[in-house]
Amino acid sequence: MEHLWLIGIGTGSPAHVTGEGMQALRDAATILVPQKGAAKDDLAELRRRIIAASGTAARVVPFDYPVRDPDLPYMARVAAWHDQIAARWQEALGSAGSDGPVVLMVWGDPSLYDSTMRIAARLAPPPRIRVVPGITAIQALTAAHAIPLNTVNGPVQITTGRRLRDHGWPGGAETVVVMLDGECSFRTLDPAGACIWWGAFLGMPEQILYHGALEDAADPIVDMRMAARAEHGWIMDTYLLRRV
Amino acid sequence: MEHLWLIGIGTGSPAHVTGEGMQALRDAATILVPQKGAAKDDLAELRRRIIAASGTAARVVPFDYPVRDPDLPYMARVAAWHDQIAARWQEALGSAGSDGPVVLMVWGDPSLYDSTMRIAARLAPPPRIRVVPGITAIQALTAAHAIPLNTVNGPVQITTGRRLRDHGWPGGAETVVVMLDGECSFRTLDPAGACIWWGAFLGMPEQILYHGALEDAADPIVDMRMAARAEHGWIMDTYLLRRV
Repeated sequence: MEHLWLIGIGTGSPAHVTGEGMQALRDAATILVPQKGAAKDDLAELRRRIIAASGTAARVVPFDYPVRDPDLPYMARVAAWHDQIAARWQEALGSAGSDGPVVLMVWGDPSLYDSTMRIAARLAPPPRIRVVPGITAIQALTAAHAIPLNTVNGPVQITTGRRLRDHGWPGGAETVVVMLDGECSFRTLDPAGACIWWGAFLGMPEQILYHGALEDAADPIVDMRMAARAEHGWIMDTYLLRRV
Repeated sequence: MEHLWLIGIGTGSPAHVTGEGMQALRDAATILVPQKGAAKDDLAELRRRIIAASGTAARVVPFDYPVRDPDLPYMARVAAWHDQIAARWQEALGSAGSDGPVVLMVWGDPSLYDSTMRIAARLAPPPRIRVVPGITAIQALTAAHAIPLNTVNGPVQITTGRRLRDHGWPGGAETVVVMLDGECSFRTLDPAGACIWWGAFLGMPEQILYHGALEDAADPIVDMRMAARAEHGWIMDTYLLRRV
């Protein structure tokens, strides 16, 4: 694996892929495709559709994700899991290796809350990494709501559900985007003066949007999220909070 | 102008445009194209190339940007300028109006440090806005350097050069992305313990990258920026700072 290309594929619509992303799929020799099991069939189907739409003749090689060890503390668990994924990539490529660029298709953008670059850093010898940017869930969210991410000259804080729960509203922040939140952590905040713009399955036909004052919108969002998750077997969502 | 579509076109490469963006150009009736004058010919040429690549049959209508009134205070100056731009759009469309969707091609992503949505809100009657996300300078920067935007579970602060100068390093921030900075405002920070990843003309053939410890990299970046600006007559750049 001399050249490893990480291609951002956006958040659910094959039309999120850029011209550069489609061309990179065509220029690849091999595409490594995860088989995530449980409830992620929709995402596997999306990858298949993008590969077909690109018209690439690359070899498509599946690999299995290892399971995270629940007994390890958070950071150690993540590190061990990354080691195992790197090993699975090399295993999947096998002794034959690859005679050209190897591609991984990355949900959203490879730079934002994604581990692929950190896993790739574990490969030996280290491959040359090329990153092709893709539409993030943040952009899919603001586009779907047709709202600006920032106020005029205003800052934006991107953070995680875990941090929101542990640290509350980020100090001094006006606009906060929360990702990786499986627990509706906005419920832990004082809702006074805050608005929320929420979206799930962004870019997909199943897309759900909701927005309003946080104190009014929190409960409906929790209910919608639970119902949608039950219906689809999985959910990916993100939201923007703004003090008004 | 019943339907106004804002299409993010990325930061300099026609290959940044998504499949959705290209399709929207083809589905448009009219494309409003700014004539910015001074030094922005490269950007006008990029728009022309994207329009040609899309194969659209839409009518291309130019409009002129008004000049900002330097005597007004910042927020009032911006507001007056936005009013004037909205008037220019309606003037350019003329009495004939448009018999279908009107498109504006927006540098980067329409949601991030861009005024188009705020200007559109001034139109009467208000059009129905559709936003098509595009690759931002932040993503072009992290892709070009092949670095993650965030650390594991870490937050990211997006801010402006003006705010960095006025308020210093954002309180508690680990990763800071600075946009709209014409003054190399990183020079106003205590460089101890910080690294910088800088990029100009991201996505374009002229792209320049530099990174290093802030105390070592600051002067070379200032020099490179000045030389590149003199050579091209303009420059667009952005950078990421991280405490390590």
